[in-house]
Amino acid sequence: MLRFAKRFENLSGSVVREILKLTQQKDIISFGGGMPSADSFPVEELAQLAADTFADHGAQMLQYGTTEGYQPLREWIAGWLQAKGWKVTVDNILIISGSQQGLDLTSKAFLDPGDQVVIESPSYLAAFQIFSSYQASYLAVPSDDEGMRMDELEKVLANNSPKLMYTIPTFQNPTGITMTLERRKKLIELANKYNVIVIEDDPYGYLRYSGEELPSLKALDTEDKVIYMGSFSKIVAPGLRVGFAVANQEILGKLVIGKQASDVHTSNLSQQIIYRYCSQGMLEPHVEKICATYKAKRDAMLAAMDKHFPKSVTWTKPEGGLFIWCTLPEGLVSTELLKEAVEKQVAFIPGAPFYLNGQGQNMLRLNFSNSEMASIEEGIRRIGEVFSKAVSR
Amino acid sequence: MLRFAKRFENLSGSVVREILKLTQQKDIISFGGGMPSADSFPVEELAQLAADTFADHGAQMLQYGTTEGYQPLREWIAGWLQAKGWKVTVDNILIISGSQQGLDLTSKAFLDPGDQVVIESPSYLAAFQIFSSYQASYLAVPSDDEGMRMDELEKVLANNSPKLMYTIPTFQNPTGITMTLERRKKLIELANKYNVIVIEDDPYGYLRYSGEELPSLKALDTEDKVIYMGSFSKIVAPGLRVGFAVANQEILGKLVIGKQASDVHTSNLSQQIIYRYCSQGMLEPHVEKICATYKAKRDAMLAAMDKHFPKSVTWTKPEGGLFIWCTLPEGLVSTELLKEAVEKQVAFIPGAPFYLNGQGQNMLRLNFSNSEMASIEEGIRRIGEVFSKAVSR
Repeated sequence: MLRFAKRFENLSGSVVREILKLTQQKDIISFGGGMPSADSFPVEELAQLAADTFADHGAQMLQYGTTEGYQPLREWIAGWLQAKGWKVTVDNILIISGSQQGLDLTSKAFLDPGDQVVIESPSYLAAFQIFSSYQASYLAVPSDDEGMRMDELEKVLANNSPKLMYTIPTFQNPTGITMTLERRKKLIELANKYNVIVIEDDPYGYLRYSGEELPSLKALDTEDKVIYMGSFSKIVAPGLRVGFAVANQEILGKLVIGKQASDVHTSNLSQQIIYRYCSQGMLEPHVEKICATYKAKRDAMLAAMDKHFPKSVTWTKPEGGLFIWCTLPEGLVSTELLKEAVEKQVAFIPGAPFYLNGQGQNMLRLNFSNSEMASIEEGIRRIGEVFSKAVSR
Repeated sequence: MLRFAKRFENLSGSVVREILKLTQQKDIISFGGGMPSADSFPVEELAQLAADTFADHGAQMLQYGTTEGYQPLREWIAGWLQAKGWKVTVDNILIISGSQQGLDLTSKAFLDPGDQVVIESPSYLAAFQIFSSYQASYLAVPSDDEGMRMDELEKVLANNSPKLMYTIPTFQNPTGITMTLERRKKLIELANKYNVIVIEDDPYGYLRYSGEELPSLKALDTEDKVIYMGSFSKIVAPGLRVGFAVANQEILGKLVIGKQASDVHTSNLSQQIIYRYCSQGMLEPHVEKICATYKAKRDAMLAAMDKHFPKSVTWTKPEGGLFIWCTLPEGLVSTELLKEAVEKQVAFIPGAPFYLNGQGQNMLRLNFSNSEMASIEEGIRRIGEVFSKAVSR
């Protein structure tokens, strides 16, 4: 009776939500979500900044704002990126309601039904939801320990005409892998050669625990092919819903039209709090602090995996971010093992939803940021029991 | 070189933005925008509630939340609507980032390119932007002093197959007119008969200054055809970006999928502030207070129009909301007169953008909520000079 749009026909929206509901039970040790640690949030500082915002110009803040975002925050972000060597001005910055909104707005600006989007495989599953809601078709490019494979990418670009390419080059979700500098340069070269817009999704890039910082794709971008999505969710707090997009002005103008027709603008209170946090010099020491905490958690999880997982299981050793990606021997099915794990009060995310082609059955993602140190050792021990039993079956 | 999506080909996004930029000059008396009065915002109360939110459960609030919205706010809204006699539960409520997001999400859920949308003519121009971004085609139904004309609506429905019908039945934008009870009942009857989903956009409904309250379309809805959009923008503060959608669960599920793929959820801080404001009994006395202020402003504007406008100009006498709709003698062009008005440091919005068929050239919208009492008299006097000169040309 209800005549819904075609774009939702292949969307369930439920696969991972249902899994995550499982993990919201009390007493369960969940490595399932992708959340930052709530312990890490600078609650008192943000409370003070909220109070300051109300006191300094409450009425103005409570009024409608511009779609592009709070001008001082846009300026601060532009300056921050300029200091990293990016060639951007305030006119290249759009404040968005979390970086995920940037994926939606970019899709809205570029994708007609059937248009092709290049994705690295595996990739962030919510991004698939977004592109699918614009009826995109996919071109999946495999990745290895150095990120998306450029030989495979070139084959795909030579034989197709995608409008967009989606990548999380730094501490990728779900693998934790970082694309090498050589591949980053090659990716930009290919984007230029084949005229493809690159969405660089970078929610984790500031969370580096070891290894050397690499330039972002946007910093290497020579022909304005990259739209960069940054986020304050993982480095300040996700509940405020503030991120930013960086793009050339023509593209940004289209994103603005899309945003104006969606939520008009991002919460002014959230924007002002983030602005004050950043401009008062609180961001950098805070990022240093959470990096130290997350590094200890990553190291604890990797050490526990070494200790408790059977030898036939392999995993990535990410230099930052929130995730470790784990591969079981062929034939084991992580969704099956999740059920056994949940019986032992521990959870992870199975790998298949991060692929579009049925791969990943024997893979899974582990999040280390949102568990206590003691829970990490205990949770991995329990998962190790499940894996050991499965391997020996 | 850039290959944008077709959906943006007919979208400029600039017509009214450009006009509004004019009106942001200092010293200009602007009746142009649709903003509530910043003087009306309960700044100190909201500041206290923000502080309480941080103190009571700051870390939880700063973490990711659910897409459906903050559960206590959903429950409060459900109870509020039940008290008005609506047959709804918490499962019918979705918190959105301003009611405009509800138009976007509903379009996303229902509209394929070319699908028909019934609009009342004239109507809210940002809604056109949204439907057009989904490549809708339009069926315009004229309205008169009693709202959308039901005889014309039935003709349109009998000869077409629209999926959606968009209406602002109460204190309409731009006309200020309220649809009569008889027409409301007829509209529901027709929606049922022709299986059309009705979007009831109700940002102004709580701002009644005279006349008798009428049941909303959603309250009259017998077959779950109505999706209701409510907003706290005009009754608390727009800068926080909090609204709500009310729909049957199947439809709400689709809106949730769309929202999940856009901004994930609405700012938790904004939701908690609104929740506390409402649940602590502050909303009703505040609405009473702003209604008294806006009533005085409406009365002042109507009195000034009586005094200063030439006899050949006519206008609506709205019982609430933010707008008065004004009709000049045929042949006068309000965009031309706006230029003369701006020279006299006063502004309004010309009528044509509120129509899709070139009508409205001799019409214009006046906003009375966002000006001081003294400015209302003076601004209308100046516009009266422009009109008098034009009429006598």
